[in-house]
Amino acid sequence: MATEWKSGLEDVIAARSAITAIDGAAGRLYYRGYEIGELAGAVPFEAVTHLLWFGELPARSDTAFADRLAAARGLPAPVRELLERLPRTCHPLDALRTALSLAAAWDPDTRSNEPEANLAKCVRLMSLVPETVAAWQRLRTGQAPVQGQAGGSHAARFLQLLTGRAPTAEVARVMDVVLTLHADHELNASTFALRVAVATLADLHAATVAAVSTLKGPRHGGANEDVLAMLREIGDPARAEGFVASRLDAREGKSRRERADPRARIPGFGHRVYRVDDARARVLKSMAKEMADATGRGRLFEVAERLYDAMRARTSLPVNVDFFSAVVYDALDIPPDFCTSIFAVGRVAGWCGHALEQFADNRLIRPRADYVGRPPRRLAG
Amino acid sequence: MATEWKSGLEDVIAARSAITAIDGAAGRLYYRGYEIGELAGAVPFEAVTHLLWFGELPARSDTAFADRLAAARGLPAPVRELLERLPRTCHPLDALRTALSLAAAWDPDTRSNEPEANLAKCVRLMSLVPETVAAWQRLRTGQAPVQGQAGGSHAARFLQLLTGRAPTAEVARVMDVVLTLHADHELNASTFALRVAVATLADLHAATVAAVSTLKGPRHGGANEDVLAMLREIGDPARAEGFVASRLDAREGKSRRERADPRARIPGFGHRVYRVDDARARVLKSMAKEMADATGRGRLFEVAERLYDAMRARTSLPVNVDFFSAVVYDALDIPPDFCTSIFAVGRVAGWCGHALEQFADNRLIRPRADYVGRPPRRLAG
Repeated sequence: MATEWKSGLEDVIAARSAITAIDGAAGRLYYRGYEIGELAGAVPFEAVTHLLWFGELPARSDTAFADRLAAARGLPAPVRELLERLPRTCHPLDALRTALSLAAAWDPDTRSNEPEANLAKCVRLMSLVPETVAAWQRLRTGQAPVQGQAGGSHAARFLQLLTGRAPTAEVARVMDVVLTLHADHELNASTFALRVAVATLADLHAATVAAVSTLKGPRHGGANEDVLAMLREIGDPARAEGFVASRLDAREGKSRRERADPRARIPGFGHRVYRVDDARARVLKSMAKEMADATGRGRLFEVAERLYDAMRARTSLPVNVDFFSAVVYDALDIPPDFCTSIFAVGRVAGWCGHALEQFADNRLIRPRADYVGRPPRRLAG
Repeated sequence: MATEWKSGLEDVIAARSAITAIDGAAGRLYYRGYEIGELAGAVPFEAVTHLLWFGELPARSDTAFADRLAAARGLPAPVRELLERLPRTCHPLDALRTALSLAAAWDPDTRSNEPEANLAKCVRLMSLVPETVAAWQRLRTGQAPVQGQAGGSHAARFLQLLTGRAPTAEVARVMDVVLTLHADHELNASTFALRVAVATLADLHAATVAAVSTLKGPRHGGANEDVLAMLREIGDPARAEGFVASRLDAREGKSRRERADPRARIPGFGHRVYRVDDARARVLKSMAKEMADATGRGRLFEVAERLYDAMRARTSLPVNVDFFSAVVYDALDIPPDFCTSIFAVGRVAGWCGHALEQFADNRLIRPRADYVGRPPRRLAG
């Protein structure tokens, strides 16, 4: 057994994958060879999902896959009943995780890991996630879930379920881009947890629940929530520089463990893989400005921009996908603790793609620990 | 970035840990330095849990920790209501996973990852798991859950919740040993998934749900279920050798992928880490024989023993913890699809221990993939 190890499995290869490539030095991200900035907005999220799962975009005239996704829409009655019984204080991601876990009990294919059954479950999960998160957002704010109209894109449907009315084409396009930008990111922690679960041959619902469980943490999807909360807390663009200075000063001369303290971090900056701003952040920044201007939320964008400039001036930490997406979410009137749910609505496409890939050529993922504990000893008589 | 990789992270060090040491070549397992065969049955499971979490056994006269665990007993009303609404066909591990996920919504400490809050949640999870799995076993067989008496050991309490009556001292001792043997096993897949979730700073309930999700697979906890089903299917000791021969013949000259087919495997044999029979299997084998004799289930033990001998004669695959525990479960009248739930009742002690260790010195666990997909390409005009 090897005895050297890389903390946090940094740069350790844990799987082969043909889905997503990241060039951390250049800030580039490719889904099946297509650069993210070229895909986002140019092809709908449904086609991106097809690309992630099957390796190719469908022909523009081929609606079979989008139709199959649309046919799976609707909130299962047991899930709705579950949500109706949750306390309103329940975190949206806890609600989603519990709902997906429950849905396994009624899914006709839960006990099969055959390829066709898995594909059918992926299709259902693609709708179950947005249907659930939208229903919970309404229920916890005292509104009844809506059925939604037939037709319309995945992104438009989600917005309609959320607000109760059909979105404008512009807002639907923004959500579509957001979902594509979040759709996959190689072996991020939630996708890795999902692959660990699949590798035991756990079923697809179980594995997706492992992913949602892992997404919750503020070092992963939960960062989104922290960014929006931070920007609102700062509130005034003039205060952004001082905020950055006080946080960074709190890090000076500190150990890694001390720097991990949330009070010494700026959420939305830094990434395990990227050394420079990533392509998703660039797309989101320009979209955030447009959206903020269009919705009269320019002030929050200014806070974000000033904070971004202050970070640029003082650190080499790249901005990440969570930072400017928070401004987009604010313009869409999305509360901070709901941001991670939107992340899940996009990322479930990647989770399913990685599950299908892992099932197709599986081996148990079971590393070792470097034992640093007590040497062998005997029980006291 | 490294480009060589170890499939399934075999022998790759993914964390430092002072909890459990495995000597795969010698078939030895140590909790905090104590050999498993010496601990099991000599100290109660509650003390083993204390050992795993805090590094030392409590003094024999010190009941503070056991009392704290006992004080957390009882099934939360929302969990009971959830279980009552599940379809009876729901797999016990799906029920457990959903119940733990739901419990987060009512836990007073869900949103805190402070050490005291995490310890309080660990204590509650230690009881929540057995209370839930016992209640579900009763509900799905048409019986009302029982409250259970105050007092008694963790193992005795669990058996009482399951059967509705206080167990004999002998049966309680068997369950206590089973729980200790399953309590921890270093970076097994479910514990590793839990550490991946904790490393994002997800909360303890979310991380435990990731663990239960991962436990379900037949390459992990689910193997237990497959062993008992197989032994019952064979039924007659005289058929054991022929069964082994036909399965092993189906593996001849096959690829790794083909050998992974369940029809070409003998569940209960083979392990990523052990090269010889492990200490847990030795304890379980003798206990299985005693239990089978005592309960008139000697025939299933004979099937198991003949199958074990046939495997010995033909392969070098070590027997694992799942094999003889299945015979013990049969003697305890436990149905096959409930075996993995008992695994969880024991393993939750280890999950909590690893979560506390990961929280205490955390870094995001985020490996990379070896990209083997399409090179960069442009969208067709």
